[in-house]
Amino acid sequence: MGLLDYFISSRSKGSANLAKERLQILVAHDRAARDQPSYLPQLQQEILAVIRKYVDVDLSAVSVNYEQEDSHEVLELNIVLPDTAQNQA
Amino acid sequence: MGLLDYFISSRSKGSANLAKERLQILVAHDRAARDQPSYLPQLQQEILAVIRKYVDVDLSAVSVNYEQEDSHEVLELNIVLPDTAQNQA
Repeated sequence: MGLLDYFISSRSKGSANLAKERLQILVAHDRAARDQPSYLPQLQQEILAVIRKYVDVDLSAVSVNYEQEDSHEVLELNIVLPDTAQNQA
Repeated sequence: MGLLDYFISSRSKGSANLAKERLQILVAHDRAARDQPSYLPQLQQEILAVIRKYVDVDLSAVSVNYEQEDSHEVLELNIVLPDTAQNQA
């Protein structure tokens, strides 16, 4: 249930602030082999690079959580985006 | 609660099969401005391309869900990976 716990905690933090522009990325990896090195930290960097093609992400606005438990690992990126609504209104 | 519903359903599908090598990616976007075009479908393609640098992903093993509700959109990728445990054992 690690993944769900993650999500509940991260959602509740932001749920009171619905007007906020946010991007949340979760990568969960169930590994059959425990002794292989994880590629999620590198994957994180590359996913972030891809996202920055689409939106202007201030790296200080990115919070990263990474947890590993037995053969299950979860990477979570929470990104607060610049408020594009101001440009629209 | 759309995101959690997603997760509960997708986790329960796989939870009986813990030895399976799986990668699950969730991208949730809370948008302040509803009338902007979504970039999640394009983002999906690019994230998939990044993942394929690390693991050999058969595109037929990728299932994609995309849902949009008001200013909240969720992209979910479920990928069944080749079983690397066989190489390790």
